[in-house]
Amino acid sequence: MTGGVEERDQSVSLDLLKQKMANFAKERDWDQFHSPRNLLLALVGEVGELSEIFQWKGEVPKGLPDWKEEEKVHLGEELSDVLLYLVRLSDICGIDLGKAALRKVELNAIKYPASKKNFNTSNGTALTG
Amino acid sequence: MTGGVEERDQSVSLDLLKQKMANFAKERDWDQFHSPRNLLLALVGEVGELSEIFQWKGEVPKGLPDWKEEEKVHLGEELSDVLLYLVRLSDICGIDLGKAALRKVELNAIKYPASKKNFNTSNGTALTG
Amino acid sequence: MTGGVEERDQSVSLDLLKQKMANFAKERDWDQFHSPRNLLLALVGEVGELSEIFQWKGEVPKGLPDWKEEEKVHLGEELSDVLLYLVRLSDICGIDLGKAALRKVELNAIKYPASKKNFNTSNGTALTG
Amino acid sequence: MTGGVEERDQSVSLDLLKQKMANFAKERDWDQFHSPRNLLLALVGEVGELSEIFQWKGEVPKGLPDWKEEEKVHLGEELSDVLLYLVRLSDICGIDLGKAALRKVELNAIKYPASKKNFNTSNGTALTG
Repeated sequence: MTGGVEERDQSVSLDLLKQKMANFAKERDWDQFHSPRNLLLALVGEVGELSEIFQWKGEVPKGLPDWKEEEKVHLGEELSDVLLYLVRLSDICGIDLGKAALRKVELNAIKYPASKKNFNTSNGTALTG
Repeated sequence: MTGGVEERDQSVSLDLLKQKMANFAKERDWDQFHSPRNLLLALVGEVGELSEIFQWKGEVPKGLPDWKEEEKVHLGEELSDVLLYLVRLSDICGIDLGKAALRKVELNAIKYPASKKNFNTSNGTALTG
Repeated sequence: MTGGVEERDQSVSLDLLKQKMANFAKERDWDQFHSPRNLLLALVGEVGELSEIFQWKGEVPKGLPDWKEEEKVHLGEELSDVLLYLVRLSDICGIDLGKAALRKVELNAIKYPASKKNFNTSNGTALTG
Repeated sequence: MTGGVEERDQSVSLDLLKQKMANFAKERDWDQFHSPRNLLLALVGEVGELSEIFQWKGEVPKGLPDWKEEEKVHLGEELSDVLLYLVRLSDICGIDLGKAALRKVELNAIKYPASKKNFNTSNGTALTG
């Protein structure tokens, strides 16, 4: 693993993670297992592990003020697992995830104009639509 | 939305998406709805929409060679929705997602040395562990 | 649909639902689409729709006292969709879901003796383990 | 646990599972943890564990002909975990799951008439809608 220090000095890009995941799979000859639906199910598995962290806690305040440091580290790992499979799935499907995400934010801004602040919690009106 | 052209010229960073999501919520007074567990359930909802795209297709080859352009665009939107909620959830929890992801890749490299190429499909030995 | 009245007079069994799902698929020539992983992804899709109902609500009290009747009906439909795909997935995999569920309850009773009432919300000690 | 033998001689009902789960929670003083959203997140966690079983396998034929007995037992346990939390979530929400499921099957029969056998794998036309 090279360049760890420099990379962390600046914001992490989706392309960097994509490249790291591609190298990781290639070095282990794992490309053969990385079909779209395999990766999708692996992603679902990681979302399950993420949910388990929150499952018995009731409502959790922003910033997780009462969580132990080790719980936060664990949370960071599960969030990362979801992200890494999402990046890999996108790459294997030929989707430019960063470009798609910027476009989606713009679509959302049109769908939910900032001047209309009301939010319908019943019908599921949502941030990313 | 400013700077769209310039942003797309370079790789999209997680910090950029985090900032865009924070602004988006603030402009709409939606911070009040963005509790950790609300965002987590919204993420699960988007993973469900992502799964629906793949659910009746049987095995899908890499690169999605037979998919229509509109299907790929739709896929990009659902992948983005998962990403955007993941970025927002991380931010609200006070987790630096990019930093955590780089650390997780390094942990994975230790857990699965490149010299050991075998992959156990039965016990769930996985890319991100 | 025959016997609706009689069926509802008594408790609904998993075998009844299994049979109804099998007939439903056969009558529509849908068996060809009901592979294990197709059904699993369809299940994930329905779990997503279930999550969407709860996503912006914050903590929800038992019995859903403030929910409108139409919201409860919708919730019943999404819970049912998850159940129906779960029953169908089990059937296609050759698993006797009812028998497996009774066995799992017994295993849980051994794993979590009733005399030890404490519950660890941090490490995810859970009802069904 | 009483009546194990007799129960298994006949089809397992959703009401039986509901009752067993209610007793299980009461005996351990776990009702306090069984809020709707806690149970929902626990359900998502179990769906994740179910997905992990299938994640690296590629397409899997019906009946799982090549699976080891221990893999099938594990699968039965994960399917059961999803079912048990689904039953418990329904109970805590005041939803009669069996009744709702029978109603949903009837609604599906109206939505997808048996005479129209075609199935659109692109737009997500689905068994349970």
